[in-house]
Amino acid sequence: MDIAIVNDTMMGLEQVDSALLDRGTYFGDGVYEVLRSYHGKLFALDGHLSRFARSLTEIEITGICMTSIKDKIVQAFHKSGYENAKIYFHITRGSQLRNHLPSRDIKPNFFLTVESLKDKPEEKIHGIKVSTYPDLRWKRCDIKKLNLLPNIMARMDAERKGCYESILVNDAGQITEGAGSAFFAVDAGRRALITRPLGPEILPSITRCHVIEVAAQSGLSVIEEAITPAQAAAMDELIMAVTTKDIVPITVFDGCTIGSGKCGKHTAALIENFKHHTV
Amino acid sequence: MDIAIVNDTMMGLEQVDSALLDRGTYFGDGVYEVLRSYHGKLFALDGHLSRFARSLTEIEITGICMTSIKDKIVQAFHKSGYENAKIYFHITRGSQLRNHLPSRDIKPNFFLTVESLKDKPEEKIHGIKVSTYPDLRWKRCDIKKLNLLPNIMARMDAERKGCYESILVNDAGQITEGAGSAFFAVDAGRRALITRPLGPEILPSITRCHVIEVAAQSGLSVIEEAITPAQAAAMDELIMAVTTKDIVPITVFDGCTIGSGKCGKHTAALIENFKHHTV
Repeated sequence: MDIAIVNDTMMGLEQVDSALLDRGTYFGDGVYEVLRSYHGKLFALDGHLSRFARSLTEIEITGICMTSIKDKIVQAFHKSGYENAKIYFHITRGSQLRNHLPSRDIKPNFFLTVESLKDKPEEKIHGIKVSTYPDLRWKRCDIKKLNLLPNIMARMDAERKGCYESILVNDAGQITEGAGSAFFAVDAGRRALITRPLGPEILPSITRCHVIEVAAQSGLSVIEEAITPAQAAAMDELIMAVTTKDIVPITVFDGCTIGSGKCGKHTAALIENFKHHTV
Repeated sequence: MDIAIVNDTMMGLEQVDSALLDRGTYFGDGVYEVLRSYHGKLFALDGHLSRFARSLTEIEITGICMTSIKDKIVQAFHKSGYENAKIYFHITRGSQLRNHLPSRDIKPNFFLTVESLKDKPEEKIHGIKVSTYPDLRWKRCDIKKLNLLPNIMARMDAERKGCYESILVNDAGQITEGAGSAFFAVDAGRRALITRPLGPEILPSITRCHVIEVAAQSGLSVIEEAITPAQAAAMDELIMAVTTKDIVPITVFDGCTIGSGKCGKHTAALIENFKHHTV
């Protein structure tokens, strides 16, 4: 008979909960999104939904009703009662006995969580420390998928170094992005906000779009180009941008203090102008 | 309150089964093995266990007792009563609310299945068709981990083309390995079995080791070098090697018939000599 062991318990394979046969676990065969609310309002919901729809298409998970996903997000958010919420959701291709090829009748699994989000205003003043790590990821980082082991390895490395985030560096010696965030540099002399151009090496970050939108209001032009860690360390200001925290100054980069070691004036302007987007 | 939605059901997040909070699903944060038995005997168990231990070490999942894993495998296999069994097992870093960093007290999850394995003798005579696909995988393919989306995409592409396996081709235009198998070519003129050398681009396949062992008995020297799809298509014989099927001739490669279009004589000798390893 077909057998399973779940932790220490042996059973017939047919008794196993379908959650344990999820292709999400076997293969990371699914895609996800993280969004947040500010002051009781969901931020950039449509942007996240359209990126999610693209991710689904890219890995050929079909037949998903995006209106139903949107309804679920809104209902769960309202039910939570949180003003500032973090909402995570994913869809996997479904559950089946392990086989690389999905069965024809497989039905996707949906999973969503809403948690309270505690903002940390001190991070926006004192900034965070980051360290670099090799970008070990696959060649389609533009898809927001459940294969995140290289990101986890990078974050564990950062933690060991006393850093919050890991900035990934590719084989060409260029920064791609953070393990879980977008990356920006400010060249004060050129009054420029520098970030890597979109492509398969980075996620089309929703927060990145909004940062670029507020750059002009903040007196900065946007230059899309790749830079090296040495160039980054010599910049006037560095920035991490991520959905849950929006804009956070990076004040230490691989042990080098950036600028004054506190949030720089251009970053402060970006933070202030971003705030207007969130109310 | 913290909320979850599991498929169509909304609930408090605390009611969610821990299987749904597995870092295996969120991140593919785990490693796995597949082994088989022949005629009631587990094949290459120690080889699989030592590769598994290495995979765990590489992604820093610690505190796993390999003796206990071995006992579970043996017990589940005996309980199944199968002569020819396929055994799959994985360990993930554990279950927790989603966070890139694992919590300090997290406890790894173990999961194992035993299924009956139906050998297909006709495959060893008529061979299989394969097609090529870009190798989109990460830079540590030597770790047998749960991040397999690029492999799934490759296999789905092969299925669309009427092929069984997808042979992955890197940016340098060289074959790395199959999406779920090792790859060999026979150059009859040189009496050589050609396969890519081990390295971070391929899995250190257990079956590959055994094929290399039987090559000498089959009158073939082993050359470890990378070849291109064009070179592969011009070879006398091609081989897929995988735990569940051991040696299978590839008779069609990207639409080109290889050799006579049936199992070649060198492949037949390898299959015959491999068989002695399994009794």
